[in-house]
Amino acid sequence: MGSVDFVYPSMNDHQCAHRVAIPPPQPFFKSFKNSLKETFFPDDPLRQFKNKTPTRKFILGLQYFLPILEWAPRYSLQFLKADLIAGITIASLAIPQGISYAKLANLPPIIGLYSSFIPPLIYAMMGSSRDLAVGTIAVSSLLIASMLGEEVNATENPSLYLHLAFTATFFAGLLQASLGLLRLGFIVDFLSHATIVGYMAGAATIVCLQQLKGILGLDHFTNSTSIISVMRSVFTQTHEWRWESGVLGVVFLFFLLITKYFSKRRPKFFWISAMAPLASVIFGSLLVYLTHAEKHGVQVIGNLKKGLNPPSFGDFVFTSPYMSTAVKTGMITGIVALAEGVAVGRSFAMFKHYHIDGNKEMVAIGTMNIVGSCFSCYLTTGPFSRSAVNFNAGCKTAMSNVIMAIAVMFTLLFLTPLFHYTPLVVLSAIIMAAMLGLIDYEAAIHLWKVDKFDFVVCMGAYIGVVFASVEVGLVIAVAISLLRLLLFVARPRTFVLGNIPNSTIYRNVDQYPNTNNVPGVLILEIDAPIYFANSSYLRERISRWIDEEEDKLKSTGETGLQYVILDMSAVGNIDTSGTSMLEEVKKTTDRRGLKLVLANPGAEVMKKLNKSKFLENIGEDWIYLTVGEAVEACNHKLHTCKPDSTKEETQPLNNV
Amino acid sequence: MGSVDFVYPSMNDHQCAHRVAIPPPQPFFKSFKNSLKETFFPDDPLRQFKNKTPTRKFILGLQYFLPILEWAPRYSLQFLKADLIAGITIASLAIPQGISYAKLANLPPIIGLYSSFIPPLIYAMMGSSRDLAVGTIAVSSLLIASMLGEEVNATENPSLYLHLAFTATFFAGLLQASLGLLRLGFIVDFLSHATIVGYMAGAATIVCLQQLKGILGLDHFTNSTSIISVMRSVFTQTHEWRWESGVLGVVFLFFLLITKYFSKRRPKFFWISAMAPLASVIFGSLLVYLTHAEKHGVQVIGNLKKGLNPPSFGDFVFTSPYMSTAVKTGMITGIVALAEGVAVGRSFAMFKHYHIDGNKEMVAIGTMNIVGSCFSCYLTTGPFSRSAVNFNAGCKTAMSNVIMAIAVMFTLLFLTPLFHYTPLVVLSAIIMAAMLGLIDYEAAIHLWKVDKFDFVVCMGAYIGVVFASVEVGLVIAVAISLLRLLLFVARPRTFVLGNIPNSTIYRNVDQYPNTNNVPGVLILEIDAPIYFANSSYLRERISRWIDEEEDKLKSTGETGLQYVILDMSAVGNIDTSGTSMLEEVKKTTDRRGLKLVLANPGAEVMKKLNKSKFLENIGEDWIYLTVGEAVEACNHKLHTCKPDSTKEETQPLNNV
Repeated sequence: MGSVDFVYPSMNDHQCAHRVAIPPPQPFFKSFKNSLKETFFPDDPLRQFKNKTPTRKFILGLQYFLPILEWAPRYSLQFLKADLIAGITIASLAIPQGISYAKLANLPPIIGLYSSFIPPLIYAMMGSSRDLAVGTIAVSSLLIASMLGEEVNATENPSLYLHLAFTATFFAGLLQASLGLLRLGFIVDFLSHATIVGYMAGAATIVCLQQLKGILGLDHFTNSTSIISVMRSVFTQTHEWRWESGVLGVVFLFFLLITKYFSKRRPKFFWISAMAPLASVIFGSLLVYLTHAEKHGVQVIGNLKKGLNPPSFGDFVFTSPYMSTAVKTGMITGIVALAEGVAVGRSFAMFKHYHIDGNKEMVAIGTMNIVGSCFSCYLTTGPFSRSAVNFNAGCKTAMSNVIMAIAVMFTLLFLTPLFHYTPLVVLSAIIMAAMLGLIDYEAAIHLWKVDKFDFVVCMGAYIGVVFASVEVGLVIAVAISLLRLLLFVARPRTFVLGNIPNSTIYRNVDQYPNTNNVPGVLILEIDAPIYFANSSYLRERISRWIDEEEDKLKSTGETGLQYVILDMSAVGNIDTSGTSMLEEVKKTTDRRGLKLVLANPGAEVMKKLNKSKFLENIGEDWIYLTVGEAVEACNHKLHTCKPDSTKEETQPLNNV
Repeated sequence: MGSVDFVYPSMNDHQCAHRVAIPPPQPFFKSFKNSLKETFFPDDPLRQFKNKTPTRKFILGLQYFLPILEWAPRYSLQFLKADLIAGITIASLAIPQGISYAKLANLPPIIGLYSSFIPPLIYAMMGSSRDLAVGTIAVSSLLIASMLGEEVNATENPSLYLHLAFTATFFAGLLQASLGLLRLGFIVDFLSHATIVGYMAGAATIVCLQQLKGILGLDHFTNSTSIISVMRSVFTQTHEWRWESGVLGVVFLFFLLITKYFSKRRPKFFWISAMAPLASVIFGSLLVYLTHAEKHGVQVIGNLKKGLNPPSFGDFVFTSPYMSTAVKTGMITGIVALAEGVAVGRSFAMFKHYHIDGNKEMVAIGTMNIVGSCFSCYLTTGPFSRSAVNFNAGCKTAMSNVIMAIAVMFTLLFLTPLFHYTPLVVLSAIIMAAMLGLIDYEAAIHLWKVDKFDFVVCMGAYIGVVFASVEVGLVIAVAISLLRLLLFVARPRTFVLGNIPNSTIYRNVDQYPNTNNVPGVLILEIDAPIYFANSSYLRERISRWIDEEEDKLKSTGETGLQYVILDMSAVGNIDTSGTSMLEEVKKTTDRRGLKLVLANPGAEVMKKLNKSKFLENIGEDWIYLTVGEAVEACNHKLHTCKPDSTKEETQPLNNV
């Protein structure tokens, strides 16, 4: 950055400087209404209702809450064919997964099947995603097991435990639906991508470790999910390991991973990996049935009740101390499930170019959980793996969920006895195979490369989940993410700007090392809103910039500093602490014989500066539309007011 | 905003567009070190140590921690004279206030005098403010009474209560000193000006209400500070009101307020209001002594022990459950006291043009409380009122604190018996007079005028303090303030930019209604960093802007949209969720046949975009240094690539 070859830009075509406008005043309630609308209705969901007749509005309103009314009339045989294939495919995945995840949640396996029957039907009516396949997810199942398990032992008091699970599901649904109705869906956005990557990988790790129980055929196991207690549980019981179970487990896991790998490389054969779990279940059951392996240490599911979901709304537990546990479990699992469901819906909508209203989806997911909890279902959402299979199988509408529900109903009515001999180790292998796909180390490497802070968030979530618990990991990741937002505001960046040669553009000298500084003028850019959290910092930082600049000028013997220009382009807003700070900076610069100049304050900032009388204080003549105009004005005044600097004034201007 | 009279700016002098630079790569640890330094050492306190000999560094280091070593050698008789006057003046305020505030904290009155002896001596050595006068403050005293009072009753178990107060002071000091040493002083900045205005006014209100006990001469009173229980306490005991006490109280309060008003109007007579409390005490004591009013319902202080501070480090309570109460009380009162002390120090330093290091001040205040707690002192800081008197009395250095301490020592050694007849009602009047000055309704009106959100924060603090408790008020105000920061990031503003006539400048069309839009080009400015918390919102909002613009163009039959320019000037940073969002926006615009163009991304943003391969994706040709250059390039391409728009190409360009 050399100041020697500096040439005053565009001094010759003496353009009139532009005035910075104070935006036209708005009545308080209008601006308040506008900001409420931007906060809660950013997608303007009521736009389609404008200028319509009341009947039309009513129909649109119904269609808004029940999207099935919108797509059903247009439903064709073509669609049905596609949805039939997709529905049967996801059913073949839903049945073994449902049983497995229910076991993971320490619930009776049949609950997993129930949960794949009612909720998909509700979602098919209310959901607006065409690709989301409804089902239970491993992380929530694990969370239910660990959080409810702290209060009630599932083996000692299974019916209370089961009722608590329904209650937690009910509260989860209530929370999800309320978030949607209150337009608070953006809370889910606070679970950043980095958080989810770390969190999912952590949950997958501990779920896999938990499966060691099933694969090694252990009877006793820790309730804790932390890696340390799980490892202790596994290695203190080496004498209880069952080799029959272990061999079966490894074989099935290998089979599932091979089919997965194959389907990944040849997307046309997606159905191979989709059918593999059911095939494993059938093959495993046959094997046990034929070899009587259940008598040689291979645990099996045992009797499953025939028949559809019994009602469970009479089972809710609303008495302390259990209710508070159920509420807490419901809140956390509800948010986690919601985040997955909304993200999955959004991703596929983006892919197929249709639009999804996140808040509406939340109402749909919440309602399906509320209704589900009344009919012996536990927490469901739109799992990524199952939805991806649905999408690959070519589903067209939410009808594929209905097909899946019908297939599950058929199973519940007639086929449950067939699961009697299904070995638990196959279920463990199914869970492990699903979980290994969730450890997305490539995403973690990408985070490290692009944004170190996001990587820290991701690792925070991972380590928290693996070494402490699923809740702790979530809290750590959200806390680090929020800390980052606060740090951004509390410690905004300030840059010195320099002139880009042969232009009136001024940019950060660190980013553009070939810029020239302007003699006698220090140009600072502030890169964040000026709020209470950073006003003290900015005051100190600005005076340090001035000190450093004066020191530098003194040491090189150049012209002393005359003007300090603050480029306010990136200052989105200012509060009263901020305006006081500017007043103090003004006082400091005045005392040092410097002139404070503002460039390009935005609408909000101008409003506040005007109201706080700072504009009167600084003088409207010292506020310019661009840094270029501010510098020009400073140079102009520098050379007309200070006759001792005529040497520079005579510098030729034609070498631009 | 008319698009008809739009003229392409500067198309004739076909300037070469500038390239947007990716900042030179920095090794990770260097940039990590830099950002740590900016976060924790923004004021660069070690700058003065650079390039010095080791001996000099040692001396500078000693002077850094004990500023007295710096100013004592230069101390002159002139200074001593000024400090002597100031010290005696503040001592005359410190003695009655010390006794009063100790009563407010339910501590023996003598503790108030002890607290004005040791801490000022420590501060005089370690503090860097020349104007701060050390003493106890009403808000912390009240907090101690209400928080410790929940655990231990001060009248039933006075010695445990006293020991808890010392323990709380010890932990407060520990917290304060650690915050300073760990350079975490910026935590105090999260108590915004608006919070402090509302909080102080609320605390002053409830402290005044508490004084009704003393003024009405009541024996029993509620421990709670909420306005409702205080009022109930006062009005259920009307039969216990003592008129003698009431009359005395009103007379003294009137006297104190009159002197205050007079001194405020004639700053030269500051000493009148400074001396008034002591005068009231002397006059009140004489009156009681002569009329034997203590036998007619006027409560008096009673016996005060002679002698200096006894050591108290053996009295700390480190056993549960008391210790956790002491720690909690210490944390909250410590932060509140610190905020006042640092703010007072900074304000006067600003006024007298010297510099204060906030973190160093915290270490000084913390040390004085740690040492104080070992010698029978409770929490002290730099109260605003006393420091203002000190400043007005013309103090020159922290020596005025030493003079005050000596005066208090003299009182402790010889004059305590004189306070035997001092009526409590005078103390109540002194507290009320001091508190009424803290209700700064003008500041609240200013907040309402300038920034409604700050007003809400202020009222939240006020109402929380008055109707719930001092802690609740603080938590409410901080929570609302943080919510504002989060909302700023979660719901950033986006603006449409238009061309300012006869220039290449593009600005917000709401702020500058005379701008012209550019046919076929939509220019959006994003006003916040793009983080996980807002990336979903921004994606939706950008596509809504595009929808709205296309609808508008369709309805007016103008040229269809061709380009979307995102002005990134105000985007200070971006995380991986943000880069994914930009990729999605790119996909959406591509699908709609629009071209996405970025203008002026900053250093951090360019770095991240480069690492995440978005730069390759969008193509470096579509990133411009200014919106003007981006528009120019779009227009150029629009007119050379699309032969059907030649009509516009021939439009004359000379009417600029």
